[in-house]
Amino acid sequence: MIEVLRLSHRSERDKRITTHCGLTSRAFGAEKIYISGENDKKTIKSINDVAERWGGPFQAKYVKDWKKLISEKKEQGFKIIHMTMYGEEFKSKKRTLKNKDLLVVVGSEKVPPEMYEISDYNLGVGNQPHSEVAALGIFLYEISGVKSKFKGSKLKIVPQKKGKKVIE
Amino acid sequence: MIEVLRLSHRSERDKRITTHCGLTSRAFGAEKIYISGENDKKTIKSINDVAERWGGPFQAKYVKDWKKLISEKKEQGFKIIHMTMYGEEFKSKKRTLKNKDLLVVVGSEKVPPEMYEISDYNLGVGNQPHSEVAALGIFLYEISGVKSKFKGSKLKIVPQKKGKKVIE
Repeated sequence: MIEVLRLSHRSERDKRITTHCGLTSRAFGAEKIYISGENDKKTIKSINDVAERWGGPFQAKYVKDWKKLISEKKEQGFKIIHMTMYGEEFKSKKRTLKNKDLLVVVGSEKVPPEMYEISDYNLGVGNQPHSEVAALGIFLYEISGVKSKFKGSKLKIVPQKKGKKVIE
Repeated sequence: MIEVLRLSHRSERDKRITTHCGLTSRAFGAEKIYISGENDKKTIKSINDVAERWGGPFQAKYVKDWKKLISEKKEQGFKIIHMTMYGEEFKSKKRTLKNKDLLVVVGSEKVPPEMYEISDYNLGVGNQPHSEVAALGIFLYEISGVKSKFKGSKLKIVPQKKGKKVIE
């Protein structure tokens, strides 16, 4: 089971990046994204609407107390992975983390320093500034892969050389 | 040589996603991002400022006529890769595309239908809705890898288990 925690969401600044984090989480095998910071019902709904149309299981939900969530997840046996450009190369931990229950934490602009302490691993995809969406995507792609089966989907794409084909 | 083209940028809506596309391009081995749509000098400067501090070669620049750019790149022997959730699985083309000159095109919300026609390949990372940043990141990660050497960098991270270490 893989879940994602998005820290310090701000509705205006982060609505699109957080939405991309949510959809990327779903596409690469996570089952939940918790969003802390502002309780932005519109962004949460837009992620859940995609899961409703394209299938699940996947849920986006607001979490008020992210430290409490991390404590609970640790008690449930999850490993806490904080994605950060300052961390160790994630690939060195790939074998350790495969098939484990993971809570993958992605920050926003300012990550509270204690996040580095309470995580089990601080991991980067390289050590250059890029994007929490790319870091999350590549991490999940390597650990979990491209998810191919979704339950209850109303829409499905048939891959094409040119153009678009969607079946309902 | 890998270059990226970001289509239909709108300053207000896309400034952060386009910035993430730019930084992701740089971190995974592209040398240029062309941004079409609005000529958003602030976003272009913010990407170039990162390249200035963290090293290059990398450049973000505005392109007025993206179709002309694609024609020119084709004449120069570049393969045009359009990343789209409607396309074929990118991994099936990995061997064909390795070590080729590539222009990787990522769309915004509405991609002009002709883009599907003028590209050499329409490729998806899976066929689920997620993110152009994740798609671009995973594609470049697989084709080019995490770039480790940058020229003229003023800053460098020393990976840490906990906390941050940056050397100047």
